[in-house]
Amino acid sequence: MAYELHYWPSIQGRGEFVRLALEAAGADYVDVAREPGGMKEMQSYWSDESVQRPPFACPFLVDGKRVIGHTALILHYLGPKLGLVGAREADRLWTHEIQLTTTDFIVEVHDVHHPVGTSLYYEDQKPEALRRAQAFRSERMPKYLRWFETILERNPKNKAGSMPHLVGGKLSYVDLSLFQIVEGLRYAFPKASAKVLKKTPLVLAVHGGVARHKQIAAYLASDRRIAFNSQGIFRHYPELDG
Amino acid sequence: MAYELHYWPSIQGRGEFVRLALEAAGADYVDVAREPGGMKEMQSYWSDESVQRPPFACPFLVDGKRVIGHTALILHYLGPKLGLVGAREADRLWTHEIQLTTTDFIVEVHDVHHPVGTSLYYEDQKPEALRRAQAFRSERMPKYLRWFETILERNPKNKAGSMPHLVGGKLSYVDLSLFQIVEGLRYAFPKASAKVLKKTPLVLAVHGGVARHKQIAAYLASDRRIAFNSQGIFRHYPELDG
Repeated sequence: MAYELHYWPSIQGRGEFVRLALEAAGADYVDVAREPGGMKEMQSYWSDESVQRPPFACPFLVDGKRVIGHTALILHYLGPKLGLVGAREADRLWTHEIQLTTTDFIVEVHDVHHPVGTSLYYEDQKPEALRRAQAFRSERMPKYLRWFETILERNPKNKAGSMPHLVGGKLSYVDLSLFQIVEGLRYAFPKASAKVLKKTPLVLAVHGGVARHKQIAAYLASDRRIAFNSQGIFRHYPELDG
Repeated sequence: MAYELHYWPSIQGRGEFVRLALEAAGADYVDVAREPGGMKEMQSYWSDESVQRPPFACPFLVDGKRVIGHTALILHYLGPKLGLVGAREADRLWTHEIQLTTTDFIVEVHDVHHPVGTSLYYEDQKPEALRRAQAFRSERMPKYLRWFETILERNPKNKAGSMPHLVGGKLSYVDLSLFQIVEGLRYAFPKASAKVLKKTPLVLAVHGGVARHKQIAAYLASDRRIAFNSQGIFRHYPELDG
């Protein structure tokens, strides 16, 4: 049975981290809310009182009777099924830990343009966003990207001349997520991210390797890949790019 | 061998969710940074280049050769060992999902007093905090607490007259975390939280049940429990309580 991904149909957002994993593995899946009637189906998980374990938010994955919420948990669940995580328990936990750090990073990326509240428009919190963006560009973005670079440097399986990986010697879902982060930062903060990425060559090498992955390249060229836009997590407001 | 918890020594913070689990189970553990020389030991995980898999931040748990970062992942790892999660995989995943939602909630609680950046003082972001607090009190706090109430209502194992649980029929680490959230909200937002908690009787019943838990009651009365203060996640600034 096909996996069902439930997520907002018009943005990459958090759902994109799951889409990339499903696409890289060539998995059979339905992006439910992008199908006719799909939004209603997604929302029934919140409105229907017979759902015993309603996820707090989307994305969530439906796999038969299983309903699993939270991006990082969905990937932890799918990883072994899609062949996108190592076999050892220690590797699975470490991969999950990296994804959870990615989750934290994404919250901070989002809050650059929404420092006051998610229910307000960006236009209602521009002065606050300007201040938050400054701290994000000068401290938070470099700190996260340096950490990714460090763990790439310290992964003993990485060798000069071939694509590096965050965990072990093969592609895992966190490599795909790091690709998405680089894509998003380049879109949202082209100037500020260029300065930091210059100093993180291994992060860039992961990005390049994922972009060349056959299934991912096909996905990125397809209309299944939603373009970045100003409703998503990564938004390009030039004033926030310094 | 005793578990080693590595976390800031002077605040409850995120480490408290792990402390509560270790205490409830009567586990043998060392709160490393509160011991002489412990801060240096904790920081060596970031400064020592021979650490192959450095956690991004604390809390992290050291269990023999294992180093595990992220509150929710530590609890997912410890749950089965401490008898604080159900045996079925579906229950473990659901418990982890609830904890991840708690993590998201905690980020929002923290950002009420730090909407612009973690590196600035609260005093440097008071106008922004006032705006963010309003959205938190009127929308976010009620939304999270209502979700907890809903899943308590829908847990078929809960029966009138006995302590309810978030998952299955016995205490799990997310019940302890929900206790901590109620404690923290009551400390930080006594007026605003009282209004919401009036409408979530099952959440209050979990809080009361955990407070009466023998090991937890002993812990709360001990000097191992750090008092709430204005360096932690939950901070009482009367102007943010509406």
